[in-house]
Amino acid sequence: MRRIYLDYAATTPTHPEVVKAMLPYFTDAFGNASSIYSYGREARGAVEEARTKVAELIGARSEEIIFTGGGTEADNYALKGVAYANERKGNHIITTSIEHRAVLEVCKFLESRGFKVTYLPVDEYGLVTPDDVKRAITDKTILISVMHANNEVGTIEPVEEICKIAREAGVYFHTDAVQTVGHIPVNVDELKVDLLAISGHKFYGPNGVGVLYVRKGTKLVSFMHGGGQERKCRAGTENVPAIVGLGKAVELVGQEMGKEAGRQAYLRDKLIKGLLEKIDHIRVNGHPTKRLPNNVNVIVDFVEGESLLLSLDSEGICASTGSACGMASPEPSHVLLALGIPPEQAHGSLRFTLGRANTETDVERVLEVLPTIVARLRAMSPLSKSQK
Amino acid sequence: MRRIYLDYAATTPTHPEVVKAMLPYFTDAFGNASSIYSYGREARGAVEEARTKVAELIGARSEEIIFTGGGTEADNYALKGVAYANERKGNHIITTSIEHRAVLEVCKFLESRGFKVTYLPVDEYGLVTPDDVKRAITDKTILISVMHANNEVGTIEPVEEICKIAREAGVYFHTDAVQTVGHIPVNVDELKVDLLAISGHKFYGPNGVGVLYVRKGTKLVSFMHGGGQERKCRAGTENVPAIVGLGKAVELVGQEMGKEAGRQAYLRDKLIKGLLEKIDHIRVNGHPTKRLPNNVNVIVDFVEGESLLLSLDSEGICASTGSACGMASPEPSHVLLALGIPPEQAHGSLRFTLGRANTETDVERVLEVLPTIVARLRAMSPLSKSQK
Repeated sequence: MRRIYLDYAATTPTHPEVVKAMLPYFTDAFGNASSIYSYGREARGAVEEARTKVAELIGARSEEIIFTGGGTEADNYALKGVAYANERKGNHIITTSIEHRAVLEVCKFLESRGFKVTYLPVDEYGLVTPDDVKRAITDKTILISVMHANNEVGTIEPVEEICKIAREAGVYFHTDAVQTVGHIPVNVDELKVDLLAISGHKFYGPNGVGVLYVRKGTKLVSFMHGGGQERKCRAGTENVPAIVGLGKAVELVGQEMGKEAGRQAYLRDKLIKGLLEKIDHIRVNGHPTKRLPNNVNVIVDFVEGESLLLSLDSEGICASTGSACGMASPEPSHVLLALGIPPEQAHGSLRFTLGRANTETDVERVLEVLPTIVARLRAMSPLSKSQK
Repeated sequence: MRRIYLDYAATTPTHPEVVKAMLPYFTDAFGNASSIYSYGREARGAVEEARTKVAELIGARSEEIIFTGGGTEADNYALKGVAYANERKGNHIITTSIEHRAVLEVCKFLESRGFKVTYLPVDEYGLVTPDDVKRAITDKTILISVMHANNEVGTIEPVEEICKIAREAGVYFHTDAVQTVGHIPVNVDELKVDLLAISGHKFYGPNGVGVLYVRKGTKLVSFMHGGGQERKCRAGTENVPAIVGLGKAVELVGQEMGKEAGRQAYLRDKLIKGLLEKIDHIRVNGHPTKRLPNNVNVIVDFVEGESLLLSLDSEGICASTGSACGMASPEPSHVLLALGIPPEQAHGSLRFTLGRANTETDVERVLEVLPTIVARLRAMSPLSKSQK
């Protein structure tokens, strides 16, 4: 049975060209990039080349790129770093109720350390209202963190507009761009963000490497303390193979992004249209147009998302109920709840996220298989009998 | 010219078997280990297998092993985690003046957050005196952190004895075992440590992966906040290829360690003996017997360590003046200063750290090349003329 992977928002396979680029740095040019002998200088050169590529992709300067151990670390660094560095100015942070847990859990931690956090609501599509941001700002506000696009429902937030508000108020702005960089154009100068988090494995780069973009002049305390790597901003031996791999991934998406985004948006729309036609009591979550090109998120009434997943898996189709990072939790998605969806319905969510390898055949296969699965599960479900 | 790598304490090449073990997890079994479909379950299985291997190597239980993004992160997690979780009990931490910067810089950060830190002195060999630890403990002490072996001079600390003192006082004990695990036997139950940090790339595993061992029952606050990975102890998508690679590296060193330690100790002693015979005004740093099997650290009077390094590099020999993590700094090594070595002499330090690929021929080559280099540099050096 051919496996159809439709969970690219959770993780992507590493591109074969990326693996190829990484390989020499495991065994041959393996020097510590902070060493001064030739082995080390080779590694250093490769790291700096990757840094330049990342900077170019997002319109930043090389010295504004800090390599981290992943997207989660980049978010931890941005929030804790700004909070600790600016606490004399104020202790108030503004974020949204639909952020990834890498932001929300950091905010909860900061609350336990004396900071105050405002969690803004979103509308039924998952959009933050810029005016809400404006109203939430106080003279104690030091940071606003709004994700670029939501990882579950795919809604793209009005970051540029909110950044403008932050800038006028003299407040730092961070965005978790883990779902957008490598998928749609992201330019730090157009958005005017001060900090931006990137994860390598979300766009065919390796796991365990990410980036925090930090605009020059931003006051930030280190998160990972230790050696003087990354210009004393991020301690820990440089992960040279992963950084080189990230650089290669950036190069590849830079070439493919425009074409891929269009192709995936076409498949996305075909999938959404087909699902709405073939399954009743189903609805689409997230914004109809301000949406990631690869995201489909639906609620299928009267069935459990997990049962759908397992049935799809037995047909070789990999999907998700939402965030893989929240899988351990039996709670309904905090994102869907924030969109105003009742808990009992939020349990029936199903996310398909498309990627490079998907074709029209994959979409057709889902449209062939899923209606039957839904019908079977509904026939067995007490929910269905009582509520339908 | 054949390159002779003698800086294994900085980083090791990834073992080809480790790379081989990692490869399928980049492109084929690439699923997110937190996903519930088969792709994810495969990845999850591989992660748990690696966890068991690590646990077995150090005599721990699987559930006491937390995978991190490296040794630096493991140290950050241990210190900040214990500090924040136990601050109601007290705010005092005891460590030593020769710790790796991944411990020292965290301590400095914690001082800025209201904690008090005692930095214990060491003797001329770099040994901590257990009685000093005992005397430093107050009713506010919550954590003692003493490295298992020093990364620069190779001295192995009396961790078992200090642990006993910590345990009697009811104080948590952490050890940075980045230089010992995979090189000499380390057993958490013999040492009786509560926390222990491991780095994958120090024993032929990949970069960007480490372990924090946490004894069951230890009160700890998360360091990396976000998703519920690693039983909610460490957020961030599991770096499956790196974790699998670490597991393989553990398996390999488990087989080779005894033999390799003996072989390297023989080469170490041959190198030390040769250097003392062939170069005058040279002395060995660190303890003569309580010493890592692969560490040689010397001070060559009247020359700069950096000049020695560059001259050795031009002969294809990779060595170090001390920690690669401190390379960015022009300051003399804090470890050598703590041993009582005057700053002007500490600048002449040279570290060779041996590894799997080194042979007797490599040692002979160093003994052939270095005396000539030293003689040439001394002839040019004003230090030499004025002081010799």
